[in-house]
Formats: sequence, structure tokens, C-alpha cells
Amino acid sequence: MVPPAWVALGKETFASPIYQVVLHGKDEYRPEDIDYFVGFRPPAGFLKSLPKLKLVISFGAGVDGFLADPQFPRQIPLVRFTEPALAYEMAQHSVMHALIIQRQQRFFDKAQAEGVWRQIMMPRATSATRMGILGMGEIGGKIAERFAMLGFPTSGWSKTRKNIPNVKSYAGDGELNTFLGQSDFLTVVLPQTPQTINMMDRDFFAKLPKGASIINVARGSVIVDADLIAALDSGQLGHAVLDVFRTEPLPADHPFWKHPKITITPHIAGLTSPHMALAYVENCVRRNEAGEKLSDIVDIDRGY
Amino acid sequence: MVPPAWVALGKETFASPIYQVVLHGKDEYRPEDIDYFVGFRPPAGFLKSLPKLKLVISFGAGVDGFLADPQFPRQIPLVRFTEPALAYEMAQHSVMHALIIQRQQRFFDKAQAEGVWRQIMMPRATSATRMGILGMGEIGGKIAERFAMLGFPTSGWSKTRKNIPNVKSYAGDGELNTFLGQSDFLTVVLPQTPQTINMMDRDFFAKLPKGASIINVARGSVIVDADLIAALDSGQLGHAVLDVFRTEPLPADHPFWKHPKITITPHIAGLTSPHMALAYVENCVRRNEAGEKLSDIVDIDRGY
Repeated sequence: MVPPAWVALGKETFASPIYQVVLHGKDEYRPEDIDYFVGFRPPAGFLKSLPKLKLVISFGAGVDGFLADPQFPRQIPLVRFTEPALAYEMAQHSVMHALIIQRQQRFFDKAQAEGVWRQIMMPRATSATRMGILGMGEIGGKIAERFAMLGFPTSGWSKTRKNIPNVKSYAGDGELNTFLGQSDFLTVVLPQTPQTINMMDRDFFAKLPKGASIINVARGSVIVDADLIAALDSGQLGHAVLDVFRTEPLPADHPFWKHPKITITPHIAGLTSPHMALAYVENCVRRNEAGEKLSDIVDIDRGY
Repeated sequence: MVPPAWVALGKETFASPIYQVVLHGKDEYRPEDIDYFVGFRPPAGFLKSLPKLKLVISFGAGVDGFLADPQFPRQIPLVRFTEPALAYEMAQHSVMHALIIQRQQRFFDKAQAEGVWRQIMMPRATSATRMGILGMGEIGGKIAERFAMLGFPTSGWSKTRKNIPNVKSYAGDGELNTFLGQSDFLTVVLPQTPQTINMMDRDFFAKLPKGASIINVARGSVIVDADLIAALDSGQLGHAVLDVFRTEPLPADHPFWKHPKITITPHIAGLTSPHMALAYVENCVRRNEAGEKLSDIVDIDRGY
């Protein structure tokens, strides 16, 4: 349940008489010998089949791939990868794409391709371009801080109020619409939960300022695909930058690929590097064996 | 000597019985009636022909367009536009272009154009990508702060040592080569002076790490064009992002236009907005008339 290329590195990371690393579907092993599971999206029922499992470690910050399993062994702790470098990467991705739109870089790319000097002003001043971050956890907070430092009026929405310098905090369902109504760019960093699935539909898009752009680095399932295309086509939305999709890889015949107002990246905004992830796993296992308390344990009912 | 579109706005900004705005080459005026000159690059000898000039105001942060005039009236104070918004804009530009290269966005753009999901890792971790800022004045300092906040190891070079949190300061000629040798990305924010013209030549590029990228937001004259192309073609440099050129607009037959490792933008990194600039001018004139001290007065010998 990890990319095959990672296995050699995993075996090297855990090269000691204490550990043995097996790859499901490749190596032979007895289910009762498995102490730790590491991966992304195990098949439904698989984890339940490991009777002596001590800990489940998610290689991503989102754990919906685990919670989707109705037989997920809820009594076993589930930790999610929250390496700070991941938040840095996702903030870089969000900032870069917002700037590409805001600063009309694709217009200048086209002018260069045509060999023509086309000097135009930014269509909207930095001070008049409002950045909204939907989901202000570890990652969302980092993104918001960086937009604020670049000079943009910045706000964030979360269930509970946050206190980040130069970032206005909107909290709870009662303040969501006001938050959306003042977000010229909306960066989405929500976890996938029953409440967030299909949240971004026609009605949701209508609450944003006309011409707003969205950047989704969360999960594809938060967006209703057909409603997004309709909102872009009507001009209600200006542009969408999508790193995540309902089905990944995005199917070759999906209309997102060729839409002129959609930028597609292949789930790379916060790509987990194998070295980073395996160092994290090694640390989790070592601490767990030593009886130390683990951070980043998922609240199964909350979903993150 | 200002874009014609600005004149109406200028006349509006100074709409009062006190002021009168005239446009050289369009309006009639007597040279002895001119108290203030505002613009970018007056023809040689022009300013000397205005006998009662009190102040010269540059619409840009760089004043080489004035100092190039051998008859420039050195006894008259010259102020340069240093609106903080300009530094914010140039920092956005530099950060965006460094991220486009670092995060391989053009590779992903191409994959989307081909309709193919190509998930690849970043070639180099953020923590191993060293950002160097050549010229750490008002603007360079802002750029450096933002690179540091995005997680990159960041350093800057200037004549005198600077103290910016999380930014290593290299100072003086003796430390220049060491600074260059550790700059995987070099953002150039030098003023144009006799010392900086043609500074970035073959020998200079050879001091950078192999495959380094440069971002020039200063003046085109700091780069020897043919040497830049040779360094890109040999692989010594990875990419160049150029916003400024020896001749602007960049001539249609210049080899930069079609070079696959060059990104061209038409001098828009810190484009002065007319509203912002005229508000600045109005403030200068008002303060000068009131006998107040002006900030941003250029040291003519130093050149900035």
C-alpha cells in the first residue's frame, strides 16, 4: 500500500534485527506477525485482518482513505503524517498559483511565445485582493501567514476561532457566508468528512465574489465537478487550480483537463517525500515501542 | 516624459489654483515657470534648461535614467519613488518565478496540455534550495524575508552588513564570491551604477553553483546578454527570469525571446501605478513647499 520504490528505502530505514519490513502483495507474511501498518488507502477489511496490529500510520495528512473502511479497527490508534515540511510545500503551491493568476503570468507567457512586449498593469492592487483560507489547521494557518506577508488582506475560516497575526479569523457555520463573500481567492484545506463532501456546489460558489478563484489542495470530493464547470463558464468563478480529484489519476476523458479556466496539478502540492515519511514512521514506531505518547493521533469521530 | 494616460490623472490630482500641470511636448509652457519635474528619463540637457527647478522626482526606484545625463543639475535635489507597495510587488514577482522553477510548474502545465497525469517529486527539497539576493536595500530585504518565510535557506549580499531575521548577510567585495557560490537562485536587485554595469558576465556566472537560476528585476545593463545565453546553453545556469533589458521594449529580433531557458516579462515586476505615483508626487511637492525635509533623496555620487 506504498509506492514500490519506497520499499527498498523502507527496508534500509528499518535495517536492524528488531524490525522486519514486508510489502503486502509482494512479500510472504503471517497476518499475526504484523505490528505496524504504514500506507495510504488499504482495501476495506484489510486492517481488521491483522489481529496484533499496534498502530496504523497514514502517509498523508488526510486519513479519509482509512475512515472509508467500515471495518476500520477503531480501537487501534491512527496517526497522520503532519511533517511541517508538508505545510511549507502546500503553502508554496498555494501562494505560487494565486500569484500566477493575480499577476497574469499566463498572459505574459503567451506574449513571450508570440515574441511581443505587452506591458499591462495588474488588474487589481494587492491591497484590494482578499485571500480566504477555508480550513485553518496546521496547513491552512501556514498558508494564511504567507499570503498576509505577501501584502494581501487575508482571512481564514475554521470551526473554532484562531489567532494568527494579520489574519482575520471567521469561525463556525454562522460566519461562513460572510467569510466566503469576501474571499477573492479561496484556498481550500478542509479534511474530507461527511460534512465537507460535496460542500462546494452551485450555491456555495454563488456566495463568493463574482470572478473569485479557487485553489483546492484538500480532497477532490469537496467539489461538485459539474457545478464547478458551470460556475467557471458563467463567469461566477474566474479560475480554479485543482491538485486533488474525486478519482486519481484524473481520468483521461474528464472535462477538467481541457478547461481553459482550470489548472491541473497531479496531487503534488504537498507530496510526501519517501525519506521524510520513513523518518516519520521510524520515529513513531520507536516512540510507540518505548511507551511514549504519540502526537498527531486522529480523532476518529471528528475525522482528522 | 510620463505615459500620456497619466496626464489627465495628474491634472486631476493637482487640480487646485496653486498648481498647474504641463506635459512636455504637448502643452505650451515657459521653462522659467517650471518648479517641479516628474518623470522617468528626460533627454540629456533638458533639466538644465529649466532655470527655476526646485526638485526632480523620479517615477521609478532606479534613477540611472537621470544620472546618465552629463548635464544633470546636480545641485537640485532628486528624489526617487520608494513606495513600499513597489517592494511588495517585486517580492511577489521574485517569489512566484522562483517557485515556478523550483516546483516545476511548467512541466505540469505541459502535462496538462497533453492531458497526462505525471506525478513527480520536487527535484530538490526546499531545505536544500538556497536563495541569494544580490542587493539588500529596501526592495531586496523584502524579497529575502519572503523567501525565508517560505522555508528556503536565504542569504543576501550588500555593501554593508544587514540584520534581517533568518537571512544570512554577506557584505562587501570580499564576501561576494562566497555568497555567489551558495546561491542556487540569485535574485538581482542592484541599482545601475558604473560598478554594476556588465557585472554579470561569464566569470560571474561561473561562480554560481552549476545549474543555478537567476531572476533579474534590477536593470538589463547589469547582464552581458551573450554571456548569459552561453551560460544557459552550457548548463552552467538552469534558467533566467528577466524583467529588464538593455533596450526596452526588448527588440523583436533579440535571441532572449525564443530561448527555452529564459522567461521574459515586460518590466512589470514593480510597475508603478499612476494613482500610487501621483499620490507620492503630490506628497513630495506639498512637503517641499512647506519646507519639510524629504526622504528618499538620491546620493548622486553613489547613484541611488
